[in-house]
Amino acid sequence: MSKLRVSCFSLSLDGYGAGPDQSLGNPLGAGGEALHEWVFGTRTFRKMSGKDDGATGIDNDFAARGFADVGAWILGRNMFGPIRGEWPDESWKGWWGDNPPYHCPVFVLTHHPRASIAMQGGTTFHFVTDGIHAALRRAREAANGLDIRLGGGVATIRQYLQAGLVDEMHLAVSPVLLGSGENLFAGLDLLQLGFSCVEHVAAPKATHVVLMRQG
Amino acid sequence: MSKLRVSCFSLSLDGYGAGPDQSLGNPLGAGGEALHEWVFGTRTFRKMSGKDDGATGIDNDFAARGFADVGAWILGRNMFGPIRGEWPDESWKGWWGDNPPYHCPVFVLTHHPRASIAMQGGTTFHFVTDGIHAALRRAREAANGLDIRLGGGVATIRQYLQAGLVDEMHLAVSPVLLGSGENLFAGLDLLQLGFSCVEHVAAPKATHVVLMRQG
Repeated sequence: MSKLRVSCFSLSLDGYGAGPDQSLGNPLGAGGEALHEWVFGTRTFRKMSGKDDGATGIDNDFAARGFADVGAWILGRNMFGPIRGEWPDESWKGWWGDNPPYHCPVFVLTHHPRASIAMQGGTTFHFVTDGIHAALRRAREAANGLDIRLGGGVATIRQYLQAGLVDEMHLAVSPVLLGSGENLFAGLDLLQLGFSCVEHVAAPKATHVVLMRQG
Repeated sequence: MSKLRVSCFSLSLDGYGAGPDQSLGNPLGAGGEALHEWVFGTRTFRKMSGKDDGATGIDNDFAARGFADVGAWILGRNMFGPIRGEWPDESWKGWWGDNPPYHCPVFVLTHHPRASIAMQGGTTFHFVTDGIHAALRRAREAANGLDIRLGGGVATIRQYLQAGLVDEMHLAVSPVLLGSGENLFAGLDLLQLGFSCVEHVAAPKATHVVLMRQG
């Protein structure tokens, strides 16, 4: 069966996946940019912005693996945008411009219904109001045998972890401290949830670890 | 002034410095051995048990730095032994045999007074019953200009961190999950405490980070 997986999820040394105070100008929260330093220079990331340069190597390998064999995404609403509560209108279409980097169906968790949005390049945003299980069901159907990538944010990943639904997590631990924000691990017992570390590759800008859940 | 520093402190990916259920047979708690894999094979560690072999390289460099320029140690009582409450007698002298690896004065935090113990090789255990500030004062005096190494465990380090007294921490993040136990970071804002990551060296068995507090 296709896996529900987290890939390329950047984490601070103290376990935070985003800084505090997310806003339109600062989608990753205070200090959050530094978390992702490892990916910005990779060939895979540069290609997303239409550039034909960028580094190969460990970081790029993980970035590329993150996109391989993905047939659908699930995002928490805060990852889709800074708007909270009711959608004021249909104008917000994500952080990523007209041609988002997903190129497949993306299921956005929200309490507020909204019509699907077809973007350029094959990305369609669907808004799911009936919970994480429903979103996973729809994503699995859409993925058609490929994996479902759980994009985040932290709160969304934690919900899926607690429900025992995440099969695999690739985390990139960056050499920064955030001090506060959303902690991925707090109060979660990953061992009890069945995870163990099956891969550990250290690079100068991040340490990559893959955690796998025993079926 | 001499620094109060944590060195070679092994941490799991999920932020635990020891597993649950410490006991005489399992001083590092359940699963805790795996945390320290990186150090066992090093030349520095092997030398402690009188062996003349062991690996050099990144892990060994950090292990050796941990012992360099240290004039005194501070340990929490649980690091000294598994006994809780009153000392039943004078027989327990630590986990380390007759010649402990400290070779300098070691101040053990406890609520229960006990006479100092002079061991072979220059280690003397002193028992401090009047709190962390008093222990630091005595350790600083004894260190005579050298650094004071705060050995742990997690609860002791957290107390010194919260009091703003730790100058530097070298953590070795191991590719293991512990799931529960004592979490080093929970509820602590290291950024607010003035720390930033000043060194990041990744090796196959652990990622070494040095966190420094701005004075």
